[in-house]
Amino acid sequence: MPHRSRISAYVLDCKVEDLAEATRFWSAALGRAIASADQDGDGKYAELATDADEPFLLLQRVDHEARIHLDIETDDLDAEVARLEALGATRVAFVKRWWVMQAPTGHRFCVVRKQRPEFGSHLNHWD
Amino acid sequence: MPHRSRISAYVLDCKVEDLAEATRFWSAALGRAIASADQDGDGKYAELATDADEPFLLLQRVDHEARIHLDIETDDLDAEVARLEALGATRVAFVKRWWVMQAPTGHRFCVVRKQRPEFGSHLNHWD
Repeated sequence: MPHRSRISAYVLDCKVEDLAEATRFWSAALGRAIASADQDGDGKYAELATDADEPFLLLQRVDHEARIHLDIETDDLDAEVARLEALGATRVAFVKRWWVMQAPTGHRFCVVRKQRPEFGSHLNHWD
Repeated sequence: MPHRSRISAYVLDCKVEDLAEATRFWSAALGRAIASADQDGDGKYAELATDADEPFLLLQRVDHEARIHLDIETDDLDAEVARLEALGATRVAFVKRWWVMQAPTGHRFCVVRKQRPEFGSHLNHWD
């Protein structure tokens, strides 16, 4: 069945006690307002302002070393994960509502469900 | 003096012998054609196709562990580096034509000169 996917977000994983300070730095550095200082009320996710044609810019409090990971969003999670597996990526874990995968290059990334009402720009159609 | 900056690129740093295989994977995974398989003729940089309103998507062959880093482009390198230092970032090294910096969150990133003739969308103006 045809499905669609695109880059959904770039996530700044921060190994910090307090995500607020990290969020203030990246907000100022990138010139993006803080859209949400604490998305889920647990101090784990923050969001910087982005336009509708851009991937989200998120910050995540993590225990591992600082890195940036990307999220791919899709309207068919199983089909997209299978497509990426066929390319050589591996499943790491299913977390809440998304798959953590690892690329052959060693990069971890997430495959998430469609994040905005409209899929918008830069969309891939897979038949 | 006023200057401008914005996110210029996301760079997939790949610890690989052969960047071509990594480039093929990410091209297929992200649904982006390979714009340049070998930008400088030394097998170090490749570029995936992006639209004019998007940051570049680059791959770089590196010796350190796989990560993604971002580049900030500016029309005044000294002013932008000084601005970022005032926010808490530190200078790591000047390489060829750009500054490698480190954020207080531990993320390495680069500050580069303006990369396209037009600065285009998502631009910050600093007075």
